[in-house]
Amino acid sequence: MGLDEVLQEIAQGIHPYLAKGKVASYIPALRRVPLTKFGMAVCMVDGAEFAVRDAAEPFSIQSISKLFTLMLAMSRIGDEVWRHVGKEPSGTAFNSLVQLEYEKGIPRNPFINAGALTVLDCLMANTRGRTAEIIRDYARVLSRNFQIDYDEKVYASELKAAYRNRSIANLLRSHGRIGQEPEHLLDTYCRQCSLEMSCVDLARAFLPLASAGHSPLLHETVLTERQARRINAIMMTSGVYDSAGSFAFRVGLPAKSGVGGGIVAVVPRRCCITVWSPGLDRAGNSLAGIAALEMFVRATKMSIL
Amino acid sequence: MGLDEVLQEIAQGIHPYLAKGKVASYIPALRRVPLTKFGMAVCMVDGAEFAVRDAAEPFSIQSISKLFTLMLAMSRIGDEVWRHVGKEPSGTAFNSLVQLEYEKGIPRNPFINAGALTVLDCLMANTRGRTAEIIRDYARVLSRNFQIDYDEKVYASELKAAYRNRSIANLLRSHGRIGQEPEHLLDTYCRQCSLEMSCVDLARAFLPLASAGHSPLLHETVLTERQARRINAIMMTSGVYDSAGSFAFRVGLPAKSGVGGGIVAVVPRRCCITVWSPGLDRAGNSLAGIAALEMFVRATKMSIL
Amino acid sequence: MGLDEVLQEIAQGIHPYLAKGKVASYIPALRRVPLTKFGMAVCMVDGAEFAVRDAAEPFSIQSISKLFTLMLAMSRIGDEVWRHVGKEPSGTAFNSLVQLEYEKGIPRNPFINAGALTVLDCLMANTRGRTAEIIRDYARVLSRNFQIDYDEKVYASELKAAYRNRSIANLLRSHGRIGQEPEHLLDTYCRQCSLEMSCVDLARAFLPLASAGHSPLLHETVLTERQARRINAIMMTSGVYDSAGSFAFRVGLPAKSGVGGGIVAVVPRRCCITVWSPGLDRAGNSLAGIAALEMFVRATKMSIL
Amino acid sequence: MGLDEVLQEIAQGIHPYLAKGKVASYIPALRRVPLTKFGMAVCMVDGAEFAVRDAAEPFSIQSISKLFTLMLAMSRIGDEVWRHVGKEPSGTAFNSLVQLEYEKGIPRNPFINAGALTVLDCLMANTRGRTAEIIRDYARVLSRNFQIDYDEKVYASELKAAYRNRSIANLLRSHGRIGQEPEHLLDTYCRQCSLEMSCVDLARAFLPLASAGHSPLLHETVLTERQARRINAIMMTSGVYDSAGSFAFRVGLPAKSGVGGGIVAVVPRRCCITVWSPGLDRAGNSLAGIAALEMFVRATKMSIL
Repeated sequence: MGLDEVLQEIAQGIHPYLAKGKVASYIPALRRVPLTKFGMAVCMVDGAEFAVRDAAEPFSIQSISKLFTLMLAMSRIGDEVWRHVGKEPSGTAFNSLVQLEYEKGIPRNPFINAGALTVLDCLMANTRGRTAEIIRDYARVLSRNFQIDYDEKVYASELKAAYRNRSIANLLRSHGRIGQEPEHLLDTYCRQCSLEMSCVDLARAFLPLASAGHSPLLHETVLTERQARRINAIMMTSGVYDSAGSFAFRVGLPAKSGVGGGIVAVVPRRCCITVWSPGLDRAGNSLAGIAALEMFVRATKMSIL
Repeated sequence: MGLDEVLQEIAQGIHPYLAKGKVASYIPALRRVPLTKFGMAVCMVDGAEFAVRDAAEPFSIQSISKLFTLMLAMSRIGDEVWRHVGKEPSGTAFNSLVQLEYEKGIPRNPFINAGALTVLDCLMANTRGRTAEIIRDYARVLSRNFQIDYDEKVYASELKAAYRNRSIANLLRSHGRIGQEPEHLLDTYCRQCSLEMSCVDLARAFLPLASAGHSPLLHETVLTERQARRINAIMMTSGVYDSAGSFAFRVGLPAKSGVGGGIVAVVPRRCCITVWSPGLDRAGNSLAGIAALEMFVRATKMSIL
Repeated sequence: MGLDEVLQEIAQGIHPYLAKGKVASYIPALRRVPLTKFGMAVCMVDGAEFAVRDAAEPFSIQSISKLFTLMLAMSRIGDEVWRHVGKEPSGTAFNSLVQLEYEKGIPRNPFINAGALTVLDCLMANTRGRTAEIIRDYARVLSRNFQIDYDEKVYASELKAAYRNRSIANLLRSHGRIGQEPEHLLDTYCRQCSLEMSCVDLARAFLPLASAGHSPLLHETVLTERQARRINAIMMTSGVYDSAGSFAFRVGLPAKSGVGGGIVAVVPRRCCITVWSPGLDRAGNSLAGIAALEMFVRATKMSIL
Repeated sequence: MGLDEVLQEIAQGIHPYLAKGKVASYIPALRRVPLTKFGMAVCMVDGAEFAVRDAAEPFSIQSISKLFTLMLAMSRIGDEVWRHVGKEPSGTAFNSLVQLEYEKGIPRNPFINAGALTVLDCLMANTRGRTAEIIRDYARVLSRNFQIDYDEKVYASELKAAYRNRSIANLLRSHGRIGQEPEHLLDTYCRQCSLEMSCVDLARAFLPLASAGHSPLLHETVLTERQARRINAIMMTSGVYDSAGSFAFRVGLPAKSGVGGGIVAVVPRRCCITVWSPGLDRAGNSLAGIAALEMFVRATKMSIL
């Protein structure tokens, strides 16, 4: 069975799952996205591409943007990043303050909010004032889609309601862990989260993670092999909020999810798979998205576990 | 020996303690206060007053202002206050976030920063927009000194550096524990902390706590007897940061301290004692201030323990 | 109104409170104590004694025994005790492990279970093997009642069910904070908690705390004035589990309670008051006991706040 | 290059790493194992076997035994296991009590000590009294080596010093999370940890995890495919104490380590690799063992990330 057929079958089989999740309610602008949306795309390292349903429709990538920031920070300042953030699972809800407080302001990994803010702070120190544009342009180049942009409504809506992230950013600053003014950092953070991209865009953009750092689209190396493996390792243990173990069992791939309902999964040396469906499970991951990935690895035997 | 003599003797005996403490460094505007400053005042419930050295010099009352907010909130909304804040010791550093996080946003008492912010939030909901003026006017009336005002430099300096309190305020808001916008709450909080008052002002203002809620100066009841006792109880168990047990042993009086170096102590049914010396011990209390209070209770046998 | 009349009045007024509490259920042998029991005793520093209802009936003193261990440890090894245990309120449930874990095995005060076990460990190192007898004899001498003894059933019942204290003792040992084998320490701890004493016994035994360390009964000084004050300070801030602030407001006296329903309260320089009623409030303090103490201080104006 | 040559090359290249680690000091009986020991074995799913240096020498498997208990519990009581223990990373040191306390006695996964004790408790309830023998016999059968046995000295040494595990077991019991008496549970736990097996024994025993639950040696299915995958998933996210992210980066395989210096790694559908070297890194994993696995996956390209 070809991948086209696999995706078709998934698109048909996914129906019962679509209505089961809940759209992220804390970002007002996201509440209106219909639960029936579903898209999936696959980009192979050899250049082949497959897509189904709403795979070309842009959605709010939210935490998936943490991958862009991390990749940018790693390519610009290298291992210096790891002096500011750890690489191990956090073991608590994805944005708890407690661990941060007891571990004196060193976030456990780049995917919890405290860690993502810290990585962004490093990047801002390095890019001096144009960070939001640099992140957007990086997403544009990697996916070869220059239409990609921020959603101003989502950005504004998130910035206003970002009490918890504002609390984290100020705590990081009070521990001297970040150099930017918290409000400035938050502004850029909410921008990065508001990027709108489609499944196809994302599968293209993150294909280098499946390809030892090389982008087949750009014919360019965007990360070293070590850097790509490092990111895959962190995705494997910390990419899907508090569901790493459960996701490893069901899907068995490194992945990063966002509360917009997107998930990016990587099959090392083979392909990058992306899925979007806005209904979330209790951990904050796309409910139908995980089901679709589970169907995919079962049909293709691409799980690495 | 009369109280005048007692104060004279303390003022002489306190010298070795003055240089031992450290001025609060996190508020730039406070750093310049000389460590040699020392003042002490006593107001008796019968109207007698005693003072020594720098007792008439205004200083930054900082956390002592939490007493004004609490008194105002209690007189305006009564026991409703206790639905928003607890009355028990917190057992950790005076502004730790952990307990707040695990106890779901209900601060342990009105004197930890989270609790003070919550009480202020209640007061702001009740006073609608003129809260800072109302607090200042309350301080003026209670001490019968209409010169009392905010120090704009201290206020601005604190607001800028208030990362930790900003973190707390945003956490409270993310838990739905406060209704004000965190930034607005913080602004008023930093104003209240920047009030400048002298030992004499403070001893007059808080005399009602020693007098079952009655102000001998105003010939007026400002709190019920129950309310005054409630505040004394919380001061006894939570008024001096993480030193309640040690302070109870050395001084044995309900008290509230501030990082400006002031301490207000209450001898129920007898008097209100205030002391000021800017050098702090490791817990954040005036080092010479505690020593002076210890000398005072030893000389007067006014300790209640 | 004389104290005899005050106690009579309390004994009559207390009826509505007796059935409201709950007997401690985790110690099987305590479950059968009738909720109707009520006793109260007062020993004045001048030697006068007052008692009412079941004041002469022995009950299980439980955590009140922590006072005996602390007094013994302080008189035998002096300030060395404070190298092993703190003096500040713990701010969490009376036997939480978390603070212990984060503060690396140094319990916050001698009245939380971790602290009481640590003080007992110091005492055992000093007394070498006869500690349980020494504690019992100390209680006998201080109360001049040589009938006082352990209740073997309560002791055995507690030792068997002491999972949580066993967890704490082993944690302390794993941090190197205690020298005794945890099981041996626990055995002595459960013995000390199983002491049976009456309100009259207790009021006599702890009268030295009201009398600057001097026992009017024994015509002997059992603690220095400083030591007695130190214990009163810790009782004031940490003696009644997680109710220090509330108890200070309602009663306003240093006190130590036990889950057997007893409470010992101290009026410095005046008297020691004890009360017993087995029904507990949610914090683990005698519900009617606190109400009785509240009536007492209202009638006698003996509250220190 | 054949696997024989790969192992030979590793055995030569590993020398600089051997002395860098530290032997686990808290188990006296393990302290004497020479740091120069090194063994490595590979069992392929097709039956081929490779081994080098001390691969046939038995060592103390310690936490690797948690795999046996988990496999046994899963085959005997199925998904019932997951009502007692979670499947997600813990994010703190491998035996911290804090998470346990706040999460009310439900351990995060079967590999932290609290989780392993809970799984063993389930198994003991199911096996009624012969659990230690059953675990040993399971290890014997799976590795087809009937010489495998407990080391009585290591067992006795661990049981005596097991203060921290005893604390955890008693806490679990106080929360009602285990049914066995803590001391009985600990006894069996220390027995299971004291099993002595060689790299060859372990590679044979855990080959079913690489083979969808089927044991090529026994021609028998010991776990369902789902169960094998579940265990691999938990190993991937939680198998190497607080180093999951770092290990995933360096080795990229599901693995379980023990403080005896052993590591079991699984290449799904290909082979089981075991390594032993007693010197540990700061996280408690074999320092040379991880280096050897890193060399192995680099040479064979068997990393799954």
